[in-house]
Amino acid sequence: MRFWFTCNGCGKNKTFDLIETKCECGGTLGVEYDLDMVAHTFTKESLKERVPSMWRYKELLPVEHMENVISLGEGWTPLVRLEEAEKEYPVKKLWVKREEQNPTGSFKSRGSSAAVSVANEYGVKKVAVNSNGNAASALAAYAGYAGMEAYAFVPKDCPGLIVEECMLHGAHTFLVDGLIQDAGKLIQDGKKEQGWHNVGTLKEPGRAEGKKTMGLELAEQFDWNLPDVIIYPTGGGSGVIGMWNAFLQLKELGFIEGDLPKIVSVQEDGCQPIVTSIETESPFSAQTYGVVSNPTGMRVPSPPDGELITSILRDSNGTAVAVTKEEIKDAQSYFGKYGVSSSPEGSATMAGFKRLVEEGWLSEDDEVVLFNTSHAMKYLPYEVSNVPTVKNYQDWIATQHVF
Amino acid sequence: MRFWFTCNGCGKNKTFDLIETKCECGGTLGVEYDLDMVAHTFTKESLKERVPSMWRYKELLPVEHMENVISLGEGWTPLVRLEEAEKEYPVKKLWVKREEQNPTGSFKSRGSSAAVSVANEYGVKKVAVNSNGNAASALAAYAGYAGMEAYAFVPKDCPGLIVEECMLHGAHTFLVDGLIQDAGKLIQDGKKEQGWHNVGTLKEPGRAEGKKTMGLELAEQFDWNLPDVIIYPTGGGSGVIGMWNAFLQLKELGFIEGDLPKIVSVQEDGCQPIVTSIETESPFSAQTYGVVSNPTGMRVPSPPDGELITSILRDSNGTAVAVTKEEIKDAQSYFGKYGVSSSPEGSATMAGFKRLVEEGWLSEDDEVVLFNTSHAMKYLPYEVSNVPTVKNYQDWIATQHVF
Ligand SMILES: Cc1ncc(COP(=O)(O)O)c(C=O)c1O
Ligand SMILES: Cc1ncc(COP(=O)(O)O)c(C=O)c1O
Ligand SMILES: [Zn+2]
Ligand SMILES: [Zn+2]
Repeated sequence: MRFWFTCNGCGKNKTFDLIETKCECGGTLGVEYDLDMVAHTFTKESLKERVPSMWRYKELLPVEHMENVISLGEGWTPLVRLEEAEKEYPVKKLWVKREEQNPTGSFKSRGSSAAVSVANEYGVKKVAVNSNGNAASALAAYAGYAGMEAYAFVPKDCPGLIVEECMLHGAHTFLVDGLIQDAGKLIQDGKKEQGWHNVGTLKEPGRAEGKKTMGLELAEQFDWNLPDVIIYPTGGGSGVIGMWNAFLQLKELGFIEGDLPKIVSVQEDGCQPIVTSIETESPFSAQTYGVVSNPTGMRVPSPPDGELITSILRDSNGTAVAVTKEEIKDAQSYFGKYGVSSSPEGSATMAGFKRLVEEGWLSEDDEVVLFNTSHAMKYLPYEVSNVPTVKNYQDWIATQHVF
Repeated sequence: MRFWFTCNGCGKNKTFDLIETKCECGGTLGVEYDLDMVAHTFTKESLKERVPSMWRYKELLPVEHMENVISLGEGWTPLVRLEEAEKEYPVKKLWVKREEQNPTGSFKSRGSSAAVSVANEYGVKKVAVNSNGNAASALAAYAGYAGMEAYAFVPKDCPGLIVEECMLHGAHTFLVDGLIQDAGKLIQDGKKEQGWHNVGTLKEPGRAEGKKTMGLELAEQFDWNLPDVIIYPTGGGSGVIGMWNAFLQLKELGFIEGDLPKIVSVQEDGCQPIVTSIETESPFSAQTYGVVSNPTGMRVPSPPDGELITSILRDSNGTAVAVTKEEIKDAQSYFGKYGVSSSPEGSATMAGFKRLVEEGWLSEDDEVVLFNTSHAMKYLPYEVSNVPTVKNYQDWIATQHVF
């Protein structure tokens, strides 16, 4: 087999399957690849002839037969240098990875392309996701293209334009009176009865693998010499986890060498469990109260594998910072002025960057990459009408009888 | 010299300069290249090593020194096959070119990247544009990145989110009480006094050249075997003109051979000067009354060179169709269902396609490409506050005193 599961807790191997990637031991099942087999066809040279999408890295994605791939042109997004900003801040080079240029306007296209492709390989016809928004609209688009039915559950304060996007792509769309984990519970409660394949973070193996391609791509775009620091807006953590796996695999394949980049997670004040764990140098724990930050992808008080995220930040000699709504706003204008349309999450990386400069955490020799994970425009205040709001699975069932 | 102007009317050559591309004779000045010189470095093989943006075609763009290029990662957008739709319609293959995945969410990024790069080479510091919206937000972004001041003039019914986008990128933004040509007149009237470099359609050589890259890219993505039919939403015509030039240049370079694709222009009922000219087999004339279509990029009653557009459609054995608002809406849902977020203009190509199928104009052997020129989301009803509305240059000057 080219790929299988290995648990990061107990180390057990397991046949790859369309299952939740939680091990009995509490660890997370990651996809491992037979890198000797991969290396036969996956070479720096061969990449030059590949498709301009994340599927150029097909050997490192868990799809057996390429005809099952569901692709809308995701990945291979631009990396743009901000030379003007470099003059204002004491770093060597500053780049922005423009993930908002994905088919659904956010990096979530990658996870959905992989997750829906894997699901497609297993004959799935009905998918569901809990999401702060972008993962839902991405799932809607990919499921639509694949001819699957999609159910999207997002917090009721989810940006209206993202809710519209879910509907545009034909998903059955619902607002949940609660946070992302409440939406997740709704799906778990209804999963069996409804026959939903749950595409929530770490509920299946595709999403984290899809996001891994951000790391592969970054390495290729930098001609296999990675930058010193990567600043990433973190919520559920699949971006950080995926990228880190990419670097480890590339190292094992001999594509890259030396120190890996320092990974910095940015969160917004008011929902910052990762920052708290890093700042207090304590084991990870979920934030169980006082969640007051804005409805963005960073608002995940209880990520499915927070311990894995913080261990990556520590292993990489990175850090985590929480920024305020005002800093995010300023950063958005700053990005905007330089031609980059950045969502609050993407803007947060610029805000985090400025903070790290102030704190002297960055050095003048550092080459830094900011991940702009979504578009500014999607987050403008927009009132959506006619979307049912529900509190839990029972509530949801009730809406089904009314229709 | 690698490039210069040639007039499509009188055939005269002229040194390349940052000027209006109208000849005294009434013809349009097109940029011509020394293709023997170009062929030295521009080869199919060399393209494999190029940047994943439209600047991979640098030899066919009118910028002398690459360090003057202003790039935000435009072009090299995905081409996605719609296999499900192929089952429903009797054509051989159906593709969508996802131009909404450009840095500013529309194909206008290409024209602005080229126009601002050329302007940059000439030391321009202040640019202005009249636009139905997307060209304005694109200019705003590229000018911002280049450190130029931008002035954007759009019709007062321009989609609010596009107006917001102009402001996000720091442009001085104004609503004009009139149509795109009224906004154009305002700029021409103030040009000298204000020192504006006018980046309006065919007011300078960059935009049409930038759009040419859509044609180059399409050819490369199809491995130098072009499709049979291209359906394009047409307003000012720079897309059609640019692509056609691309094909002619590629033919001369020996990259492609045989018949060129049939080009089909789609417009919306109520503003359809190109369709009228084609349907009545008459010379082109502007639509001087009865403009009642929606505020989209297709609403250009008086394109600067309508005769050139219609002659291209005729030369290519193409045609033109006008579709209704309702057909556009249906097509948008249809696209949406298949994972494509399409603006009214992009949706119009799908509506036009359906119409051509009904009319029997397309054949079962045809491979067809639809150009999705912008995003669905940008066009949702959104009320922008605090943008001054003006009628003409005098009016505009008045707003400057008030500030
Ligand atoms: C735009 C955006 N940025 C960042 C995140 C956080 O991503 P991750 O789950 O990889 O931590 C999300 C998740 O919803 C998002 O939508
Ligand atoms: C989204 C979109 N599609 C199509 C057009 C028409 O383009 P062209 O000027 O190339 O005819 C425009 C122009 O504003 C546009 O914004
Ligand atoms: Zn285990
Ligand atoms: Zn002439």
